[in-house]
Amino acid sequence: MNHTHQIAIDKVRNSKLDSTDFENLTFGKTFTDHMLECTWKDGSWSTVEIKPYGPIMVEPSCKVFHYGQAIFEGMKAFKDENDDVFLFRPEDNWIRFNASAKRLAMPEVPEDVFMDGLKELVNLDRDWVRHGDGLSLYLRPFMIASENGVAAAPATEYKFMIVMSPARSYYRGDVRVVIATEYSRAADGGIGYAKAAGNYAASFYPNSLAIQEGYQQIIWTDAATHEYLEEAGTMNIFVRIGDKLLTAPHNDRILNGVTRRSIIQIAKDMGIDVEERRVSINEINEAAKNGELKELFGSGTAAVVVPIKGYKHHDYTFELPELENSYSNQFKKALVDIQYNRAPDQHGWRVKI
Amino acid sequence: MNHTHQIAIDKVRNSKLDSTDFENLTFGKTFTDHMLECTWKDGSWSTVEIKPYGPIMVEPSCKVFHYGQAIFEGMKAFKDENDDVFLFRPEDNWIRFNASAKRLAMPEVPEDVFMDGLKELVNLDRDWVRHGDGLSLYLRPFMIASENGVAAAPATEYKFMIVMSPARSYYRGDVRVVIATEYSRAADGGIGYAKAAGNYAASFYPNSLAIQEGYQQIIWTDAATHEYLEEAGTMNIFVRIGDKLLTAPHNDRILNGVTRRSIIQIAKDMGIDVEERRVSINEINEAAKNGELKELFGSGTAAVVVPIKGYKHHDYTFELPELENSYSNQFKKALVDIQYNRAPDQHGWRVKI
Ligand SMILES: Cc1ncc(COP(=O)(O)O)c(C=O)c1O
Ligand SMILES: Cc1ncc(COP(=O)(O)O)c(C=O)c1O
Repeated sequence: MNHTHQIAIDKVRNSKLDSTDFENLTFGKTFTDHMLECTWKDGSWSTVEIKPYGPIMVEPSCKVFHYGQAIFEGMKAFKDENDDVFLFRPEDNWIRFNASAKRLAMPEVPEDVFMDGLKELVNLDRDWVRHGDGLSLYLRPFMIASENGVAAAPATEYKFMIVMSPARSYYRGDVRVVIATEYSRAADGGIGYAKAAGNYAASFYPNSLAIQEGYQQIIWTDAATHEYLEEAGTMNIFVRIGDKLLTAPHNDRILNGVTRRSIIQIAKDMGIDVEERRVSINEINEAAKNGELKELFGSGTAAVVVPIKGYKHHDYTFELPELENSYSNQFKKALVDIQYNRAPDQHGWRVKI
Repeated sequence: MNHTHQIAIDKVRNSKLDSTDFENLTFGKTFTDHMLECTWKDGSWSTVEIKPYGPIMVEPSCKVFHYGQAIFEGMKAFKDENDDVFLFRPEDNWIRFNASAKRLAMPEVPEDVFMDGLKELVNLDRDWVRHGDGLSLYLRPFMIASENGVAAAPATEYKFMIVMSPARSYYRGDVRVVIATEYSRAADGGIGYAKAAGNYAASFYPNSLAIQEGYQQIIWTDAATHEYLEEAGTMNIFVRIGDKLLTAPHNDRILNGVTRRSIIQIAKDMGIDVEERRVSINEINEAAKNGELKELFGSGTAAVVVPIKGYKHHDYTFELPELENSYSNQFKKALVDIQYNRAPDQHGWRVKI
């Protein structure tokens, strides 16, 4: 690692920690004492600043408001019983962040700015990482175009920032989904594989239609034919047909999830037959009809593993069976045990702070 | 019109007008003395505030930075020889703005907030509208999600703003284009028809590849096959084959341009045969090869009408002929004459402030 960027630390005078209610956390609403900020200008990155979490001043002509150059990552820090703090596969997020940056014509963030900055920040606010089931510190690195001006061209100035939010498990209640037959999230040759702000805004309205129908989420299909399974708004999707685990291959429309990748590995470690290939909705419906469709679940950093209880596709609806020893439960337990340092780390996924 | 929203005006003490060099304007870099701001919260719009142009304070967790709910419009105000100021088809922009808002799960902006606010603002800064060829005031209404929090869901708070920038003609120099064969701008069932910030960020990287090859712009084709003409980054595209004018129909992938619509009308008024239909790149290449391809040009508010001098499609390149009395020149003149009140306004497009 190349440590060329200095880190300047300005600590808060009064921590908000004591006044934070860890029993009642709304996801993404509470932030820790500090944040990280680093500016790209004239082709280079500034000193990394770690300073009190607080507002920034931006002009209304700031390019991010007009042309949407904005990318982010979502990761978590976990604490074990000895008060040791761990990140989970952070390098994967850094690599994906820079893939997103490239696709959005934004500068790549050097490893020392992203990774050393992140570790320093998490370490400084390590009392905000709590142990206990479902508790973690959600980490949100992001980058925005910060140049002023309303001409449609890539910005010449950017801000890379990290904010952190203490979190409890994300999804509550049953999740039933609508499989998309009209709207789409991403085009071939588009930015679906990037963790770009614009992808999420594009998904909200179709998702709200699913919610109006009494479902919780929309599951995306390919824009060209709506015949193949893609992913959910913030999760990759797995299908279990018989004892086989299926998930869409990653391509330029689908976010290549770290959780997805980890589950595929865990499944293989457990001797489960996994196929990364195009999965047609037709195949899923047929399996549902003949009793072979055992599980549907989503995977993502925020939600970890989320069993899907039922789905709707055009006029067809299906309720998934309740399984005793579901794959999704096994995967979730295996993953969380690694994350919280309760199980051996065979693949070197944990990074101790 | 329903005037339910009050407008509160706070004027600048010292105008920047005298220190502004109207001879040397970079597009979108200089802003007038005032801006408009109106906030949506708890289901309703606040008082419309017109106040000095200046920075706003936002938290780093502001949703627009993370989930990209951001839309805008681009319009212009023109001044005639009597110092009267006109908008051009502003109602079309208001309607399109709200169509974008709906697709991005954002609240619609009432006519009195958008239109009366805009007129009041333009009137207050009317000395910033100059007459003289190519001079205009570029108007930028936009809306951003302003709620704080990093959970992926539509925001519950929004800011609608208008900023204004004095402008000279936008494009300088020749424009040659690359026709997209790999990347795409929008998906079927996606947000291409919306003036959403995310669409522009998605186009910058592919456009930068075109620039690296020595071209100025990329022309988008349909994501599914790359066989049909769509539009450019900030312009709709017209093709003249023989004496016939062709342009892609508007659909959910293409921005339905006000300039495009006006040119179609002007062409019809001139007795030109216009077809809004799918135009295949193959048809364009064939016409180029047999001498029937007379013109290619872009249309948009910022650039008005921009003749395209040449194009590249895979390995095929073509230079357009230089025409004496081109359609693009005739359309530009006809349009600009209406905008600057130098020609009768047959269709009721001008709105006097
Ligand atoms: C669109 C989308 N798909 C999938 C995922 C899952 O990715 P990961 O497992 O890396 O969190 C995310 C992120 O949470 C996402 O935003
Ligand atoms: C993607 C895109 N296409 C076309 C246009 C042209 O639209 P209008 O003529 O309304 O300016 C614009 C806006 O300038 C645009 O951003």
